[in-house]
Amino acid sequence: MTVTIRTATSGDFPAIYTLFQQTLHEGSTYSYTPEEMTRARSRRYWLTAPETHCFVMLDNGQFAGVCAIRPNRTGRARHVANASFIVHPEHRGRGVGRAMGLHVLEKAKQLSYAAIQFNFVVSANGAAVRLWQSLGFEIVGTLPKGFDHATLGRVDVYIMHRFL
Amino acid sequence: MTVTIRTATSGDFPAIYTLFQQTLHEGSTYSYTPEEMTRARSRRYWLTAPETHCFVMLDNGQFAGVCAIRPNRTGRARHVANASFIVHPEHRGRGVGRAMGLHVLEKAKQLSYAAIQFNFVVSANGAAVRLWQSLGFEIVGTLPKGFDHATLGRVDVYIMHRFL
Repeated sequence: MTVTIRTATSGDFPAIYTLFQQTLHEGSTYSYTPEEMTRARSRRYWLTAPETHCFVMLDNGQFAGVCAIRPNRTGRARHVANASFIVHPEHRGRGVGRAMGLHVLEKAKQLSYAAIQFNFVVSANGAAVRLWQSLGFEIVGTLPKGFDHATLGRVDVYIMHRFL
Repeated sequence: MTVTIRTATSGDFPAIYTLFQQTLHEGSTYSYTPEEMTRARSRRYWLTAPETHCFVMLDNGQFAGVCAIRPNRTGRARHVANASFIVHPEHRGRGVGRAMGLHVLEKAKQLSYAAIQFNFVVSANGAAVRLWQSLGFEIVGTLPKGFDHATLGRVDVYIMHRFL
């Protein structure tokens, strides 16, 4: 496997934005609409918001995925990190998601977070749920019928958590 | 009891802001810092953000509390409402919280939401937890040690949910 990870730069944004828009159009994982996630807002979300650290995956040199880590909330909850991930559809099954998950765990520890929390893991996304569980995350909440899945209709959403 | 509720107007904002700042300084319920919740941001939060409906409570004509209802998320999760509440400390034990909760439930139904979700109910706030349970909300998630309480240190946070 020749999957590598590096800190994202502003030059990565076009590839990140294209992948994000494709993902939102699919409507199976993120709640945001493609329309509301403009270029400006997407850039903040992945790259430039306060205390956000963004990484891109390369698979034989090709852009294969993106992840970002940030505080889940501010103030009295800022000790918990949040992270977002997208694996490029053409690079699935190559360990890209797992490599990003491990990297984010390591980075979160470096940044002295006490825990990582995923706020919105769609229950129908079995691959993601199993991956996070294999990395020590637990389902700490279930939002019943919280996501209007593009093909399955309303399905449950999990909140997943791991102490560091 | 002479507790009444009405739609908030911009003239209510000074009282809302003072109460919000007091509450944030107490550090026992909301995660936001007093500093980050500037006047401008507080105004958006309670009154002017998209699809936000704000109400104030009056107890014998005096400002006794504030609540707001809004979409919890956009897009594919916009069928779930979120709400925020503060009861003025000098008007506790007068049914103000319960009256606001009932009003928000009614308003959420009118607005055709499918459910209401509270994202951040501090477990140590027993009065709030019991109030929401008495109004049919269930704890659907527990964020372990998710809140740095001003006097108790890190305590659990509940996510509470009710279908409409």
